[in-house]
Amino acid sequence: MEDAHSEIRFRAVGVVRSPHREPRGTPIQPAYASDVEGEVIVDPAYAEALQDIEGFERIWLFYLLDRARRFEARVIPYRDTQRRGLFATRSPARPNPIGMSAVRLLGRCENVLRISGVDILDNTPLLDIKPYVPVFDAFPNAAAGWFDTCGTDRKTADDRFHSKAES
Amino acid sequence: MEDAHSEIRFRAVGVVRSPHREPRGTPIQPAYASDVEGEVIVDPAYAEALQDIEGFERIWLFYLLDRARRFEARVIPYRDTQRRGLFATRSPARPNPIGMSAVRLLGRCENVLRISGVDILDNTPLLDIKPYVPVFDAFPNAAAGWFDTCGTDRKTADDRFHSKAES
Repeated sequence: MEDAHSEIRFRAVGVVRSPHREPRGTPIQPAYASDVEGEVIVDPAYAEALQDIEGFERIWLFYLLDRARRFEARVIPYRDTQRRGLFATRSPARPNPIGMSAVRLLGRCENVLRISGVDILDNTPLLDIKPYVPVFDAFPNAAAGWFDTCGTDRKTADDRFHSKAES
Repeated sequence: MEDAHSEIRFRAVGVVRSPHREPRGTPIQPAYASDVEGEVIVDPAYAEALQDIEGFERIWLFYLLDRARRFEARVIPYRDTQRRGLFATRSPARPNPIGMSAVRLLGRCENVLRISGVDILDNTPLLDIKPYVPVFDAFPNAAAGWFDTCGTDRKTADDRFHSKAES
């Protein structure tokens, strides 16, 4: 058994390129970024591992939220007007700042994936790619707590969860 | 910008307890483990961040696949009979071994979550919890490449992606 408190070390396997240079105005989810295209540039050492990915309409991207603020236990989420426990939100200010987006896969050229639905900041380090598989991932009727009655319909970020914006 | 090749350091924020002590026979997805219950024991330092999570029917767990074999670029997935690029599979033998499961949330008592749909090995280090939000996560009609015509209906793991099984 791994000691739950030991350090876990990962390395980026690529980078996400996007038109979003700073948090303010960046869509908070792929659902609000359907027209936004970008690229996933996978380290050539991993290009062979992309084989067969073209058949998937969507892929999960996992990435380091490298410009997020430090963890806070309770936050006012973008889509609400009151404080919620961080683990009940999708805020980037997480203990381990792992971001996740189900983006649309438009095509692949060797180690480069063309994607749309990009809610990710430019030059974000990529951690993993998994295929989106509806039988594993789609629960369209799952009750979603405060999201089901949320207080705002905000679709883009502001600076609340990020360090000083980079240009 | 983070150097895409620098080391990324995370720490477990808790541990997953489950009846699955070794890979062989463990369900490969929550969909094949609906009767299997377990617990997420969150480090008490993060208990406050669990507030409001009770309203969510499902939660995403992110965890370290700490008993997975080293990365291979092409693998024969559990649900197929031919080699596929690793990033087009859900195999645990990934460059950054991050596991993800959309489990059902049964209840919470302080820092402990009771869950079902457990496809996770006992004592797995927890990295993150996110609420499952259908409008962000559910794409029931997304085409799923080789999964849509896959060669087997295997529902449990064997040893192909793991180091020598631990007891």
